[in-house]
Amino acid sequence: MNIAFQEAKKGKSTWTNPQVGAVIVKDGKILAQGHHEKFGGPHAEVNTLNKLEYISDAKGADMYVTLEPCSHFGKTPPCVQRVTEVGIKRVFIGMQDPNPIVSGNGIKYLKDHNIEVEVCNDTGDINEAYIFYYQNKRPLITVKYAMSVDGKINKTGHHRTIITGEEAYEDAQKLRSENQAILIGEHTVIIDNPQLTVRNREMDFPPIRVVVVRDVNTVEFGYKIFQNDGIKTLIFSQTKSRRRLPENVEVAVRDDWTPDKIVEELAQRNIESLLVEGGSKLQAEFVHAGLVDKVVTYIAPKLFGGASLPAVQGDYRSSEIDFEETEITKLGSDLKIELRRSK
Amino acid sequence: MNIAFQEAKKGKSTWTNPQVGAVIVKDGKILAQGHHEKFGGPHAEVNTLNKLEYISDAKGADMYVTLEPCSHFGKTPPCVQRVTEVGIKRVFIGMQDPNPIVSGNGIKYLKDHNIEVEVCNDTGDINEAYIFYYQNKRPLITVKYAMSVDGKINKTGHHRTIITGEEAYEDAQKLRSENQAILIGEHTVIIDNPQLTVRNREMDFPPIRVVVVRDVNTVEFGYKIFQNDGIKTLIFSQTKSRRRLPENVEVAVRDDWTPDKIVEELAQRNIESLLVEGGSKLQAEFVHAGLVDKVVTYIAPKLFGGASLPAVQGDYRSSEIDFEETEITKLGSDLKIELRRSK
Repeated sequence: MNIAFQEAKKGKSTWTNPQVGAVIVKDGKILAQGHHEKFGGPHAEVNTLNKLEYISDAKGADMYVTLEPCSHFGKTPPCVQRVTEVGIKRVFIGMQDPNPIVSGNGIKYLKDHNIEVEVCNDTGDINEAYIFYYQNKRPLITVKYAMSVDGKINKTGHHRTIITGEEAYEDAQKLRSENQAILIGEHTVIIDNPQLTVRNREMDFPPIRVVVVRDVNTVEFGYKIFQNDGIKTLIFSQTKSRRRLPENVEVAVRDDWTPDKIVEELAQRNIESLLVEGGSKLQAEFVHAGLVDKVVTYIAPKLFGGASLPAVQGDYRSSEIDFEETEITKLGSDLKIELRRSK
Repeated sequence: MNIAFQEAKKGKSTWTNPQVGAVIVKDGKILAQGHHEKFGGPHAEVNTLNKLEYISDAKGADMYVTLEPCSHFGKTPPCVQRVTEVGIKRVFIGMQDPNPIVSGNGIKYLKDHNIEVEVCNDTGDINEAYIFYYQNKRPLITVKYAMSVDGKINKTGHHRTIITGEEAYEDAQKLRSENQAILIGEHTVIIDNPQLTVRNREMDFPPIRVVVVRDVNTVEFGYKIFQNDGIKTLIFSQTKSRRRLPENVEVAVRDDWTPDKIVEELAQRNIESLLVEGGSKLQAEFVHAGLVDKVVTYIAPKLFGGASLPAVQGDYRSSEIDFEETEITKLGSDLKIELRRSK
């Protein structure tokens, strides 16, 4: 199963699909191993069966697969059908698929076709967002900010402040690439004018950009995130647009956007992971709503002092979110702290 | 010399005196080693000479001493005189004493008495505050605070918030014990009512407590730091006291206390190290004045959100202090970050 998990991790473009790996074993020998490579492409089970020298070798063999084989017609035919056809005798499954369209049905199909099934209840530490999404019916939310050691993200609040160094920048790109949507507030668009793209790596499915604004009709489309670079930008506005929108821009309208409603809308759009990149008022709203599953903060060895802008600020009632797991990484002269809520 | 530095570190009650260690070597053998134990007690050189079986063994021997031997009558007679009398032939010195009352005079005395002297220019990483004080004519200032990962020290600002756990508490006691004065603002007295003592260890010379207030006559003496526990509390007030003061309390008056003037006053009182423990306004004043040599922050795996009180807050112009050395320690589920300015 460990080899299957290693295989699973090779799948870099699975997007909203889970990473899945599979290994076929017969007489104590590995005959084939494979993984799900790309969203829309063949699943791990089929990829692995296709790697057998002779498909007849599958007869009587064991299959180790990190996630319950699918039982539905999606972009590809159901894997359980193929696994049954070729004569696999036993299937060891890492964990039951949390996606309700599959969950338990794949296992039932296999058992109904006289295949022995064993479920290991091991996630292999992959598919964190995928599992979270189906268990909680909303995306896994990571709040991210770079700050001085006195907790400030901006020296004055009126101009962008570069806080951390090269290594932290690179790490933040990786963090973006691991999320399916990146959210910022209107003020951050104006002050920082970020592009919110993943630099230095090619992505088949880059994260979509989401901006919360009050009135879309007052938004200047000259900012970088509205430029048509092939990546979608979703605007949450309290008003309908009276203007022609840039080609990659879509507007979702309701007059009372809150973190809960933003997250609900993204969940309906199958977004499994959301990175909230500020500014401080938006972070405060998510903290206040209790909608923070992970925190990633990059801390620079600097003090910005009393007049500078706190990472999380806004006039809400007192709140507290406690985290259980902490990971610390030195990145050049900066520090990365990652917090996770208990699982 | 390394053995002498190890000896020096054994001196736990040297207070405003430096830690000093000494070793006497003859014919490649260590005859004696000793250190300065306690402020007011004999110096390392004399302690070490006293450990010789026969004082005549000192004749023709080498002495390794971590700091330039003193040349003045203080609480004890000058060490150079004793070293010369007993016939030490060569003296290896860790570093010249930065204290102007000695600096160079001890070395000159020895040379004038035909003793060979070699200075190694090595601090041995001890006496950080002592050296800083004489080089900069002010105490070494450490700003300390415990905060949530979003940089907040208090959930509401009106009641004390316990932020970090047992290990961080213990470490903060050690930090206090390493400083000669602890400074807080009036608001922190009222909200937190700290005792500002070093718990869990006996100290011959505990740090004095310093509080900055606007008007000493409005101060309630019922708070813990004004209780007569044998430790001095110094109040910096803009007004003279019209009341009888508690026995351990002294008031220093001037109508324009600023961080610069506070530090100047403490320097005149021979305070070599100052720990600033908040609140956020006082921290901001010290950051704004550029008077931060070290930062020690304890970070708890929590978010307090937008309404909570930032560790450093106050309406000053934008400032920035950069630090060069960073040290990170895990303390239970908390994290300690130490920053130092470049030396």
